[in-house]
Amino acid sequence: MYIVVSAPSGSGKTSILREVLKQCPNIHFSVSYTTRPPRQGEEDGKDYYFVSEEAFRERIARGEFAEWEENYGCLYGTSAKTMKAFLEKGFDLILDLDSRGAKTLKKNYPGGAFVFILPPSIGELKKRLKRREFENEQTVNKRMDKALDEIREIVWYDYIIINDKIKNAIDALRSIYLAEKSRRERLMNKIKDFIK
Amino acid sequence: MYIVVSAPSGSGKTSILREVLKQCPNIHFSVSYTTRPPRQGEEDGKDYYFVSEEAFRERIARGEFAEWEENYGCLYGTSAKTMKAFLEKGFDLILDLDSRGAKTLKKNYPGGAFVFILPPSIGELKKRLKRREFENEQTVNKRMDKALDEIREIVWYDYIIINDKIKNAIDALRSIYLAEKSRRERLMNKIKDFIK
Repeated sequence: MYIVVSAPSGSGKTSILREVLKQCPNIHFSVSYTTRPPRQGEEDGKDYYFVSEEAFRERIARGEFAEWEENYGCLYGTSAKTMKAFLEKGFDLILDLDSRGAKTLKKNYPGGAFVFILPPSIGELKKRLKRREFENEQTVNKRMDKALDEIREIVWYDYIIINDKIKNAIDALRSIYLAEKSRRERLMNKIKDFIK
Repeated sequence: MYIVVSAPSGSGKTSILREVLKQCPNIHFSVSYTTRPPRQGEEDGKDYYFVSEEAFRERIARGEFAEWEENYGCLYGTSAKTMKAFLEKGFDLILDLDSRGAKTLKKNYPGGAFVFILPPSIGELKKRLKRREFENEQTVNKRMDKALDEIREIVWYDYIIINDKIKNAIDALRSIYLAEKSRRERLMNKIKDFIK
């Protein structure tokens, strides 16, 4: 099974994901391809596969992506082959995607769980974006509009985590994973001896 | 919101419930009415409300039960008034019911989550029932048939917990509770500022 996590920037998603992956060694993180240059501390093959735009466009042309999209001029995509291989082996996969990528997977890969992480309030979201982009109010406003656009997609997600305390948000995401693993429709094969 | 937990005897349900209630002080346990005499250590008002058959039948006649049923000659029922009061106050409620009671609530009280706890295997179930009823093979067989009948109802439950390790089973039930609290449809009121 797979879990998609979406969130506007400033929601604390990255820290939450990192901790849940540490606590749940059975979940694999889906490493996306991107044309964005690596940020400090990011590792190729661990955070992203960093590729040139040409290489990325070739992969699009060959139909190699389960989903892809452009964001602030950079391309991001998920390898369909890797995703299928993981799911066929029965592995659990967590993907960090925006709502467009999430929507594409929901349509094409049944059985996923979709989680949206929110900052505690609109005021807090704006404060966090300002802290990141303190040099430029126009950028903050643009990012704020984009965040609110993204949040409007929340209406078709399965779960919402309001990140007011990071410890609780981590616990919630881990719980969603464990609960999804306990859903009856995922276990019918394991219990068939009981109901024949 | 409310969670119903069902399980055949020998599944470890009581220990799991007790520990989850300890870990989650926000969940209230729904105390059932019963005509069964108290077992050793059971407290009136905590484990059950112990009442006479006459008193129980009067409550049935007055339509006071959200669900009730007979089990091995004893009557068991959930007070509709208490249940409604808890849910209206926004409290979370956990109910320990057999599949008949669970089905009645599913029909009449929307928004519940239904969890079925299973022993790890049919062999293990038989072993545990034998341990309890070692004096009488006929009783064991009767209980076994009843357990298997009960388990066949699993097909309409939302979640299944296979109790092979009690620690994991407790973690699973607690996770189901936390995940259900994070379901988008339960949180629409909390996030309305973000999407207006």
